[in-house]
Amino acid sequence: MNACIITIGDEILIGQTLDTNSQWISDQLTTKGINVKEMISISDEKEHILKTLSRCSSENDIVLITGGLGPTNDDITKLTLSEFTGSELQFRPEIFDGLKKYFEKRNKDLIEKNRSQAYLPVNAIAIPNHRGTASGMWIEHDQTVLVSMPGVPTEMKNMMLVILQMIEEKFDLPCIVFKHVLTASIAEAILSDQLQEFEEQLPKHVKLAYLPNLGQVKLRLTAKGDDSASLSKDIDREVQKLKSIIGKHIFGYNDDTLAGKLGLLLLNEQKSLATAESCTGGYIAHQITSIAGSSSYFKGSLIAYSNEIKTSILKVKEETIVRYGAVSIETVEEMLKGILELTGADYGIAVSGIAGPTGGSEEKPVGTICIGVGSRDKIYVKQHQLLKDRMLNIKLTSTIALDSMRKFLKRQLELHPK
Amino acid sequence: MNACIITIGDEILIGQTLDTNSQWISDQLTTKGINVKEMISISDEKEHILKTLSRCSSENDIVLITGGLGPTNDDITKLTLSEFTGSELQFRPEIFDGLKKYFEKRNKDLIEKNRSQAYLPVNAIAIPNHRGTASGMWIEHDQTVLVSMPGVPTEMKNMMLVILQMIEEKFDLPCIVFKHVLTASIAEAILSDQLQEFEEQLPKHVKLAYLPNLGQVKLRLTAKGDDSASLSKDIDREVQKLKSIIGKHIFGYNDDTLAGKLGLLLLNEQKSLATAESCTGGYIAHQITSIAGSSSYFKGSLIAYSNEIKTSILKVKEETIVRYGAVSIETVEEMLKGILELTGADYGIAVSGIAGPTGGSEEKPVGTICIGVGSRDKIYVKQHQLLKDRMLNIKLTSTIALDSMRKFLKRQLELHPK
Repeated sequence: MNACIITIGDEILIGQTLDTNSQWISDQLTTKGINVKEMISISDEKEHILKTLSRCSSENDIVLITGGLGPTNDDITKLTLSEFTGSELQFRPEIFDGLKKYFEKRNKDLIEKNRSQAYLPVNAIAIPNHRGTASGMWIEHDQTVLVSMPGVPTEMKNMMLVILQMIEEKFDLPCIVFKHVLTASIAEAILSDQLQEFEEQLPKHVKLAYLPNLGQVKLRLTAKGDDSASLSKDIDREVQKLKSIIGKHIFGYNDDTLAGKLGLLLLNEQKSLATAESCTGGYIAHQITSIAGSSSYFKGSLIAYSNEIKTSILKVKEETIVRYGAVSIETVEEMLKGILELTGADYGIAVSGIAGPTGGSEEKPVGTICIGVGSRDKIYVKQHQLLKDRMLNIKLTSTIALDSMRKFLKRQLELHPK
Repeated sequence: MNACIITIGDEILIGQTLDTNSQWISDQLTTKGINVKEMISISDEKEHILKTLSRCSSENDIVLITGGLGPTNDDITKLTLSEFTGSELQFRPEIFDGLKKYFEKRNKDLIEKNRSQAYLPVNAIAIPNHRGTASGMWIEHDQTVLVSMPGVPTEMKNMMLVILQMIEEKFDLPCIVFKHVLTASIAEAILSDQLQEFEEQLPKHVKLAYLPNLGQVKLRLTAKGDDSASLSKDIDREVQKLKSIIGKHIFGYNDDTLAGKLGLLLLNEQKSLATAESCTGGYIAHQITSIAGSSSYFKGSLIAYSNEIKTSILKVKEETIVRYGAVSIETVEEMLKGILELTGADYGIAVSGIAGPTGGSEEKPVGTICIGVGSRDKIYVKQHQLLKDRMLNIKLTSTIALDSMRKFLKRQLELHPK
């Protein structure tokens, strides 16, 4: 089954807005076993939309359109769909009632422009919009399903929940089950080396894909067949095998995040965490506090960007900095002890490094970064040689630091203990 | 003059990779006065590429293609372009020499697959790739220019510098001059109200566009004509007028950032900054330290995520928290005084708020955020009612805080002084 995604809007064609809708939709369709043949962005010009609709609907089973709905672009998508399918606009009292309620709830007046949003082509099934005023449409025309949705991502995503169900009911889709296995702190090349035998023994209907992203590699297992329960079992069996081979690198599944999983470990232990950051400048704390509810285990962080702060607040000895440098295993160890003392937290993360572009030396080039994790009893610090780019170094350091802390809590750390 | 952008690659169609190339290219073309009619993503299947090339080259003056070069997809774009334009592949010794040098420099062996990268269609002008091994191509065929580039963004962007020059030489482009005027802490609706007369007086060849993004609005002035020097003068004159109307909301131009401009002000004054963050959890410090060289004015930050840290380290009085709450003007004022005392910085930023999704009350709902900026002599704190989404609240608070600090340094602050 083939699908095509059309995005309508001048703001995308002039490079003002990045189209993220198409990727999201194609990801959703792909996991249902639908083949996305083409993604197209065009302007809100009627003739061009008509030509594109005509071509795409003849080549695909389903055409999904986002954008071009609402007052700012004169509802061009709706009018063009009405013309393309030869179906007149019709007033829908139930949509109008919904609009009235929408505006009442927000203490705003419904104006004439909004009234026009209650008109849809006769042949369209309305898809309710719980986040905005433009209804979605499902139109079956000449053996093709045409779906129209607003371009606002939150409105579109909400509607897609309904539309995916309608697609599953209408079409005879292959059964697909997949699972993402999330790993950190191990390179794709090393992983694929360790998983060579695993890949060779995979049953033919199960596929493995590597999706690397800055210190993390997502492994996607996909199984295609007829029966979802048996496919799920197949996937679970392969995941168990993966766990026995690369278990300690796996931090979670599907939508898990490193910071979220670390938070759960701390919640389980009822322990608290604090961080002392130099080169990451608050990014580790930002990752931790991105998780709702992190205030119940995260005490806080000291961002010691100057040496003065390292000595005066974290009580790093001046002698240590002079002798070993601000970026050294010795300084990071003292930063870690300092933050535990200062905040009273049970566990701590400390980092110091040269993020770049300047500050490097022959002995310690840009990308030299020391990362420490531990408790009052035990501290691990390791020096890493990372990248040349400032922002990539900040993000990669954060990933390694969070993953090291996670491994420390799971007693899996193989770093050199200090 | 019309252009079309084609992206080739399965990873985009299955939703695994977000295509950011097309937006970047269309932004570049638009500022040169080229009309991007369509952006298309298709898989690396020869028949589909041929059909798309045929359609797009008949409808456009230039077709820019990214992706489908290199060993992983068997150089499908090159082979298809060779077939489409009826032009045989030809060995190019100068490209082969370049490849040999590329691998020598990296201490790697050149393998047979790479040798094939030295073959290009006879009719192609090679565009050197300084960041990778696949050459770009410029082919003139049937009145249309076909351009092929690798999909790796850094390689593509580097080639586009050359390609944009070639486009300017080949085509008679309109002369376009534009400037982005960057504002913060003022809503688009209020701006457009204040700029109504300004917009009405604009000469016909100068256009204004509003590009809002979370607490910031970019104003784009575009002038179209024949002579770039006189257009630049026109733009400068309009920017001067903008400055006289909304001057204090303007923090910079074109690629400036709030954190970067704040850094320059601090460097000029030779003064230092520190921050005390609660709800933003390090995001303000992360913004500040994203700027290379920030270590010369940024002392550091205390992320006081627990009340305990607020009282023990920042010396906020327990009584203040009990009486007014952790999210209050009074607490933030004491946090600000505390961070200045603790770090010895000249200036400070302090924030406390309820980012959500939980923690709100009737009196202080989610989105209640107090932001303070100041020095030892003068402190401004203001309570804001922001949004319902945690991540948006964190980012918006950071923007307002950085902009308030900037205004404080420019003596433009109209907040209620404490």
